[in-house]
Order: sequence, then C-alpha cells, then structure tokens
Amino acid sequence: MKKLIFAILAFSLGFGAIAQTKEHDHSLPPAELKSPDGTAIHRCKHSGIIKTKVPKRPEGQKDVVGLRVAPLDSVRVGFIGLGMRGPGAVRRFGLIDRTSVKALCDKYQDRVDKAQKKLTETGRPAATEYVGDEAWKELCRRPDIDLVYIATDWENHVPMAVYAMQQGKHVAVEVPAAMNLDECWQLINTAEETQRHCMMLENCVYDFFELTTLNMAQQGLFGDILHVEGSYIHNLEDFWKAYEGNWRLDFNEKHRGDVYATHGMGPAAQLVNLHRGNKMNYIVSMDTRPATGPKLVKNLLGRDSCDFKNGDHTMSMIQTENGQTMHIQHDVMNPRPYSRMYQVTGTEGFANKYMREGFAFRDAAKIEGVPDHEDLSSHDFVPDEVKEALMKQYKHPIVAEIEEEAKKVGGHGGMDYIMDYRLVYCLLNGLPLDQDVYDAAEWSSLGELSRISIENNSAPVEVPDFTRGNWKKLNGYHHYMKGE
Amino acid sequence: MKKLIFAILAFSLGFGAIAQTKEHDHSLPPAELKSPDGTAIHRCKHSGIIKTKVPKRPEGQKDVVGLRVAPLDSVRVGFIGLGMRGPGAVRRFGLIDRTSVKALCDKYQDRVDKAQKKLTETGRPAATEYVGDEAWKELCRRPDIDLVYIATDWENHVPMAVYAMQQGKHVAVEVPAAMNLDECWQLINTAEETQRHCMMLENCVYDFFELTTLNMAQQGLFGDILHVEGSYIHNLEDFWKAYEGNWRLDFNEKHRGDVYATHGMGPAAQLVNLHRGNKMNYIVSMDTRPATGPKLVKNLLGRDSCDFKNGDHTMSMIQTENGQTMHIQHDVMNPRPYSRMYQVTGTEGFANKYMREGFAFRDAAKIEGVPDHEDLSSHDFVPDEVKEALMKQYKHPIVAEIEEEAKKVGGHGGMDYIMDYRLVYCLLNGLPLDQDVYDAAEWSSLGELSRISIENNSAPVEVPDFTRGNWKKLNGYHHYMKGE
Repeated sequence: MKKLIFAILAFSLGFGAIAQTKEHDHSLPPAELKSPDGTAIHRCKHSGIIKTKVPKRPEGQKDVVGLRVAPLDSVRVGFIGLGMRGPGAVRRFGLIDRTSVKALCDKYQDRVDKAQKKLTETGRPAATEYVGDEAWKELCRRPDIDLVYIATDWENHVPMAVYAMQQGKHVAVEVPAAMNLDECWQLINTAEETQRHCMMLENCVYDFFELTTLNMAQQGLFGDILHVEGSYIHNLEDFWKAYEGNWRLDFNEKHRGDVYATHGMGPAAQLVNLHRGNKMNYIVSMDTRPATGPKLVKNLLGRDSCDFKNGDHTMSMIQTENGQTMHIQHDVMNPRPYSRMYQVTGTEGFANKYMREGFAFRDAAKIEGVPDHEDLSSHDFVPDEVKEALMKQYKHPIVAEIEEEAKKVGGHGGMDYIMDYRLVYCLLNGLPLDQDVYDAAEWSSLGELSRISIENNSAPVEVPDFTRGNWKKLNGYHHYMKGE
Repeated sequence: MKKLIFAILAFSLGFGAIAQTKEHDHSLPPAELKSPDGTAIHRCKHSGIIKTKVPKRPEGQKDVVGLRVAPLDSVRVGFIGLGMRGPGAVRRFGLIDRTSVKALCDKYQDRVDKAQKKLTETGRPAATEYVGDEAWKELCRRPDIDLVYIATDWENHVPMAVYAMQQGKHVAVEVPAAMNLDECWQLINTAEETQRHCMMLENCVYDFFELTTLNMAQQGLFGDILHVEGSYIHNLEDFWKAYEGNWRLDFNEKHRGDVYATHGMGPAAQLVNLHRGNKMNYIVSMDTRPATGPKLVKNLLGRDSCDFKNGDHTMSMIQTENGQTMHIQHDVMNPRPYSRMYQVTGTEGFANKYMREGFAFRDAAKIEGVPDHEDLSSHDFVPDEVKEALMKQYKHPIVAEIEEEAKKVGGHGGMDYIMDYRLVYCLLNGLPLDQDVYDAAEWSSLGELSRISIENNSAPVEVPDFTRGNWKKLNGYHHYMKGE
C-alpha cells in the first residue's frame, strides 16, 4: 500500500518516470542505450528488441519492388573509381555486346590511363576521361549515360550513387553499397523518388556453386529451407596496403560490427527470398576483442591504436519472418583458409561449399538426376560422381547460357562477368534487376545493425523492413528472363 | 495530462502495470519475461541482460574447484542404467586395471544379464544385480562402492547423482548431466556439501584430434585463442526408436533450446579455460521453427504434435570474460553429415575437424615440428604431410600413453576408453578429475539458458558463475598427472 501511495504521489507531481524506476527494477530508460553516430534507437518494452527509426515514405513516393523501366537499345556507362575493382569491370563491359563505355573517372590520371588501356584492348573506342576529386559529378551529369558504375572506397558509395540517380542515371555500386542505416535510407528514398535502378555489385551470388544450389533449392531438392550461412573469412594481411591511404584498415579501426557482410549474406538471402515473401525480423551479434587489428595499425602505420573498434571475429544470427535462421561471420584478421561458408540446411537436404563442397539428402535416390548408386546415406555427403551429376542436371539457366564465355573472360572465376552480363541483360530487356535497392540496403545494413547489437551486449535489433510494407509484393526470389 | 489522470486512476484501482505501459515505452516489466518452469529471471535495466537466480552458497560450504580426495587402492564401481551406453562402460571397466565392478542395476533383468555377460567376458567375476525401478537406491547405499556410474535417461541423472553423493559416493554421469539450472545447482551444492567428485561423462573431449589440438593450443601454436566452435549435428532418424518409451523425442517435443550442447561445448570449453581463469558472461540463442520434429511424432508415435517446442536447428553465441566468442549449434533432425564442428581461431593459427580436418597458420615455417615444405600459405590448410607431422609432434601425453590400448578396446574410436581410464587414473592417484562438477553445470546449463534467450527474442542471458566467485582459483585447463 505504501508503494501505491508513493506511485500516486509521484505521478501527481509529474515524476512518472522516477516513480516507475523506483517501482520496477526492469525498466530500460532510453538513455541506457548506446546510440552509435547518434542514430535514434529505442528498446521495445514488450519484446526487448531494439528498434531503429524507419523514416516515413514521403507522400506520393512509390516503392521500386520489381521496378521495370523501358528497355534500352544499348547500355551507355560511365565508371567512377578505377583502383582495384574498376579496371576489370571496364574490360568486362568492353566484352559485352550492346554496351558503350562513355566515360572513365578517377582522382588520378594514371588509373584512368590503365583503365582506358583495358578498354581499348577490347577493341572499343576510348572513353572520355574525368580526373580529379570532383570530376565524378561532371560524369554523372553527362546526358549520354544510362548507368553509373561506382567502384570507389566505401564511404563515397552513397554520395555518388545518390547524386547519379538524381541526374536520372541507373546505378551499380560496389559492396557494401551503404555503410550505415542512414545511408541505406538515402539510397532507397532516392531510388524511389527517381524510380531508378540501384544495384549493389554483389558478385558472389553469381558464383557457380551458389547459382546451382539456388536452382536446386528453388526446385525443392532441399525441402523447406530452415537455416543458411555465409561469411567473409579472408586474411587480408597481404592486401591492406593496397587500399589508398589505408582507408579499409582505417574503417575497421573506427567501426565495430560486421562491416563487410554482403558476400556472405547475398547468396544466403536469395535462398530465403528476402523481401519476396519473407523478411529479416531481428539480428543478434557478438564479436571477439580486437587482437590482430591493433597490431596491424602498429605494423603498417607505425602508431599505437588505443581504441581499435572492430573485433577480430564477428558473428551474427538473424531470425526471419518465415521461421528460419541465418548465420554470418566476419574475420579479415587471422590466418584462416578463405571461406564464405555458404551452407544450406533444409528438411530434405543440405549443401555446403567451403572446406568441403557437397550435398547430402534424406533420400537421394528419389531425386531426379541422381544416378543409381549403392552408397547413398543421409548421414554423409553424396559421392563425388553423384554430386557432379547433380551439378550438371541443376545447372542454373543463366550459367548454362554464358558459362563458357564467363570462364574465358574471367574475374573471380567468371562470376564478375555473369554479374555484369545480367545487369546489362536486364537493362536491355526492361526487366527487374537481379539485385534491387532493398537487397543493397538489407545486406549492407547488417554493418550498423550488428554494431548496435554488439554495443548493447548482443541485444536483438530489429532489421527494418526497407520496403516499408511491400515485402510480400513478390513471391520468391527470381532471375527474370526475356519475355517475362 | 489525460495520460496522467489515467495513470493515477489506474494505480488507485490497482492497475499499476497498465498505467506504466501507457506512460513509458522502454520499461520491461518482469511480467513480460517468459520464465520457463517458473525459474526466477529478471532483466537488468543497465545491461539489458537477463539474469537467473544464483542460490547463495550455504554457510560453511566449500567449493570443489580442484578437489582432491585421498587416493584409492582400487576403484569399486556400481553401474546404473544398462540400456545404450551402460554395457560398453561395464566392459571397459572390466579391462581397466585396479577396478572392480561390484554392482549392475537396471529396471530390466535382460539388460542386467547383457551387461553381466560383457563383464564376465573380460574375465572379471560377476557383479551383484539390482533390478527394478527403485533398485538404484540400494546400489548407492552399498558400503563397498567408491563410484556410481550413471547412464540412464536424461531426467534421472540428477536425482541419482545427488542421492549417490549423499551416500558418500563419487559420481560419473552421462551427458547432459543436468537438464535445467535448478538441477545444475543441485549437483553443485551436493558435490560441495559432500566434497565428492561429480564428473559428467563427456567423451568428446577425449577424441584424438581434439586432444592433440588442445595440446597444440596450450603450447601456443594458435597464438591467442579468439573464437571456438562446437556442435551436435547428427540426424537421429535411425535412432529415435532406440530410446525406451521415446523419452528422447518426448524431451525434444517438450523443450526448446540446445538440449544436447555438451559434445560441442566440452572441447570448446577446455580451449578457453572456463572457470580456470575465464568464464562465460552471456549467451544469445536462436532457433528455426520445428519442421522435422512434429513429422517424427506423427510417423513414430502416430499422433499430431500441436506444440513441438524444439526448433530443428538451434544456435548460440557466448561471450567470455576474456573477450573471446564461442559458437554452438544443434540439429538432430535434418539430413546433414555428422558434425561436432570443433573449430579454433587464434591470432596465429586455426584448426578445424569436420568437413575437412586440418590446420592453418600465419607462419607455419616457424613452428617446431613442421617439416621443410614449399607450400606453406596462411591462406590455406597446411598440406597433409605437414598436418600428420604436427599430429605426431603434438600428440597429447595422455594419448601417447594409452592410444594403442584405447584403439583395441574401442568405443567411439577409443575416446570412451580414454575417458574411463582417466577417471580411474585420477581417482587412484588422488588427483582432480579432468571434468569437475562446474564443467558439468556450465555445459549442461546451456540447455535452459538458450531456451530463456530464445523465448525472449534472443535476448542475452547471463551464464551464472557456477563456482560462485572462484573461477580464477585455477589458471588454465590442465590434465593432472601422477605426482602433481
């Protein structure tokens, strides 16, 4: 009774909050939540889930789920960023029919020269050159360009992509497309406002094993898909210096969380049909202390790193609306064999790519394309010849169409070529792209979402519905083909 | 103002909780927390971490960290539970010197007969037989027994272990030792009160690769250990019927969470020295929907399962005091190759057992025991011959001592024999056992802790310090040898 009287008095005096804290030991005042970069976050009292702010879609603005624009006669492209990934992309576009490389842009002339050479070696005419810090804006404003292809350092992706869309261009942008939630929403709002395509250049979704497995999954070989995994485990010790001004190490030093989630996430996301009838509900993340990170700063930059943010190893678990789980990992610091993990667990089958590539099934004998074989156990991978037969039988139609060419052209085993080929194919045929701006946001957002979780003792953090209500508009992930 | 008046009215009418909900969006009233089996839990308002109740250590009761008791001349043992795991253990004890199998107990005579036969086949005299539901108590009361070895169904483990210790016996108990937190504390309080050994029979810590890797880790080959993994991924579809009355499927139907965590957890735990200078701080867990589980109930038991609790695939991440992460998984439902994952990431090296067994190092050429080899990359597993050389060089002293014998005796590739051998060895020499009651509690508790996390949207849940303050008393995990 004493408590009750105190509560009434406190409320009467306008001290509701204080009264409540006294009464209940379990409240979580918003001030307790760490809010990186000032992002507005709060913890829902019912679910315990931390939520970030979802900006309201402006009046009259339409989503771009399944966006189609008029077919192009040819794809006229301008490239910004010709350091690591750019020159290879220029060469590939030089090899794809019905494209025209109009412009090349970098801060440095020598990089433009190198890319120009790659282009002319394919037999194409030289492109207009744009050199300097602000030259990219001029490129974006050219009227004779349909597509701006961005392969700069991470923090320039969104400013450039937004500006390019505002000039009426479609955009292809390297991974991660966006470095935080605010940037994700900038991309989405601009794509919606301008009704332009914005595709993140996630190439790993085009790798052969991943495409084949996706096709098998879509044909039901794994039954109901329950759990998927992906990762970026790549010891970068030989690569750090290649990033101009050490921007990549610098970004890791300043940012906690899975800052490079998209290679692991992309193929996993397509398996569970994100924003095509499914969505991510929440994520929880955890990291180790930074151990190798600070040593790299000492060794490469010759100074102490007193507050290196990025843990050496970062993990996340994600719950989807359809009751599945996703698991991703990130480690670019320690001596491990390269791995994007890529793993699928379904009620009827299992696929795994790294360490050992293979499939297992509850009843392999039932599957079309499996040859007669004595040694079919649900407790082990199917024998190599069965695997090969399945890889052939379930080759993805896209791969079947262009694999020979892709392998000749090269670039990460052909997947880069397939990626660019598909981008051009969809633009030429007026089809929805394989990856839309919501994919870019979903996969890129895991950087900041994982950071919020980690900085709050691995609390669950809601993954925003970036489609703002339209995640059921499409039914299942699909690569569109001519005539669809 | 309207809200305020409502609040006062509501409080006056005794609706405090409702008023609070209206006024404050961020509080987490305790009533919101799901509390399985009535376990008292609350969420800390500062950390967001859910905490369970840690019972106070009774006045005068001493911990059993590093417990030593007087050396035994011989180990006189009684077995309870002779279904699946029991008979093999009886046979192994028949083959270990300075042991004496005094008593065999089961509910069923035919099982006792079978075990008796296993025993006499080793050349040992027949043991006294105890048959029936309550016969185990009589066995525990025998004055000529030092050790009670329990291999019953899961839910009988703790009642039997507690009773046996109360009769002054040491206890060895199958995995999981305890099925919830209350049972963990019962084991601990009884072991502390009686100053008896209580060892969980976690055999996977004695597997050859795990022991060798642990030895390599302790000798520094992996540098600072940052991340460890383990799992129990085992499609049990051929095994469910072997559990009398379907008790195992029944347990899965009724319990959410990683109900069988110890095989994955044990080897991982030893690598990070849990309660030997380190401890688990909190766990977050997530599961998929149950898909195969309910189908099994339909197929095996012929009825619908309307509320199957255990998700098909369950994952957890654990943060340790020393800034490492641990990751465990559980799937006994779906067609996947058997895996206990077992993986170690350190600043200088990496080890992995399943899918592909191997090691990778930042600088393999520096490691003692690595032969001259051209092909040493930190980006790939070391070649097989290097791996073999390391496995030989870093063979664990225990393995070196008894591997030939262990392989002859058999039982999960020899690890069961090493486990029993070590238990007897330590008892004969008055040494601390390889696994103590806190290990049993730490590894078993993950079942309920993961359930609490999952039922609260993957909220972080504190892992209790089962030593109640003494986790720094020992420094590093250690297998004690004679004379220490």
